[in-house]
Amino acid sequence: MPKQVDHRERRETIARALWRVVERRGATHLTMREVAQEAGISLGQLQHYFGSRAQMLTFAMDFAGEQSGLRVGRALAELGERPHPRDVLRAMLVELLPLHADARATSRMSAAYVLEALHDEEVHARARGGLLQGRAMVEGIVRQAIADGQLAADRDPVVETDLLLALTGFTTLLELEVVEPAAVLTAVDRHLDRLFAAPGGAGGAGGAVGGR
Amino acid sequence: MPKQVDHRERRETIARALWRVVERRGATHLTMREVAQEAGISLGQLQHYFGSRAQMLTFAMDFAGEQSGLRVGRALAELGERPHPRDVLRAMLVELLPLHADARATSRMSAAYVLEALHDEEVHARARGGLLQGRAMVEGIVRQAIADGQLAADRDPVVETDLLLALTGFTTLLELEVVEPAAVLTAVDRHLDRLFAAPGGAGGAGGAVGGR
Repeated sequence: MPKQVDHRERRETIARALWRVVERRGATHLTMREVAQEAGISLGQLQHYFGSRAQMLTFAMDFAGEQSGLRVGRALAELGERPHPRDVLRAMLVELLPLHADARATSRMSAAYVLEALHDEEVHARARGGLLQGRAMVEGIVRQAIADGQLAADRDPVVETDLLLALTGFTTLLELEVVEPAAVLTAVDRHLDRLFAAPGGAGGAGGAVGGR
Repeated sequence: MPKQVDHRERRETIARALWRVVERRGATHLTMREVAQEAGISLGQLQHYFGSRAQMLTFAMDFAGEQSGLRVGRALAELGERPHPRDVLRAMLVELLPLHADARATSRMSAAYVLEALHDEEVHARARGGLLQGRAMVEGIVRQAIADGQLAADRDPVVETDLLLALTGFTTLLELEVVEPAAVLTAVDRHLDRLFAAPGGAGGAGGAVGGR
């Protein structure tokens, strides 16, 4: 068992070294040699843990996903019992966007991974799986909010889920300093306010059906 | 003058070769040697046109931007004189998202460029400049629509512009086949419908001020 823990710890140390390299120089030229150097181990030792660059990237990405999940979990715990779905969605979005150093590291990692996915089937399948899981979680929250009358019944849960996911588009705008963090939070809040506004107003063709 | 044209043509040929490499293998391992091979010229000839990898990427990106601009221009021309701002914004979004092969090539190019920008100041400044220009254009359309009474006067043009730009977040969802093209168009239309809905409904705190 201790051996197992050590193995896991070593892999996490390597993943963090990889993030630092990505953060500093981007993933474009990332090599296993460079990550080994950053982690303070030999290339041979690194290869003991990861057989290929793709395996190493995949682990680093999974670990980034776990860390984001933990951050979201902590944010949700602070909301207390039975939090409002608006607050849950906000906490999720805020932790996904590169609004602070930790989220920036995982967000950059994620962008590099998506680019890698475009020409690597295995990475593509894995990245897609992760996103589909996130999508299902958001859609579940939206559907529950409709069932609980917190969200107007004339809202299409699929469309609303897609529009919520599209808000991750602020990532590039934040990274290139085209939009300030405060402006992103304002825009996210405006979108959520409209989503959870009292039914009947927000311009659906179907008219107001839902009640509270 | 013919010499100049030839120079430009050759650079465009190289840029298209670079796109094909990015489309096929991603930008991660992209080298000048590989682009030269794809363009059917020697590395020395390539270096005659571009002194560095960054210069080559920047030209390919500028050329991608031009091509997107031309596509948007053609789409707008089809809308006839004095098109409705809703249709203008839709045409712009549709041409930016990877919904067809040409747009996919420039969109992938763009994603690679943004990653490069994170650790290259010059690329960062240039990518930022391009996005700020696009942002200003969208904000201009939004402000004009408010002035013309096509968009409710209680809408904040900055927030609405940011939310429109965030819709480019569908890029990753399309590339990883998490959302189908038809669903993206539905979501974009829903967002635009709400934006241009008759004032008073869409959940602004300020109440309905604008009229048509």
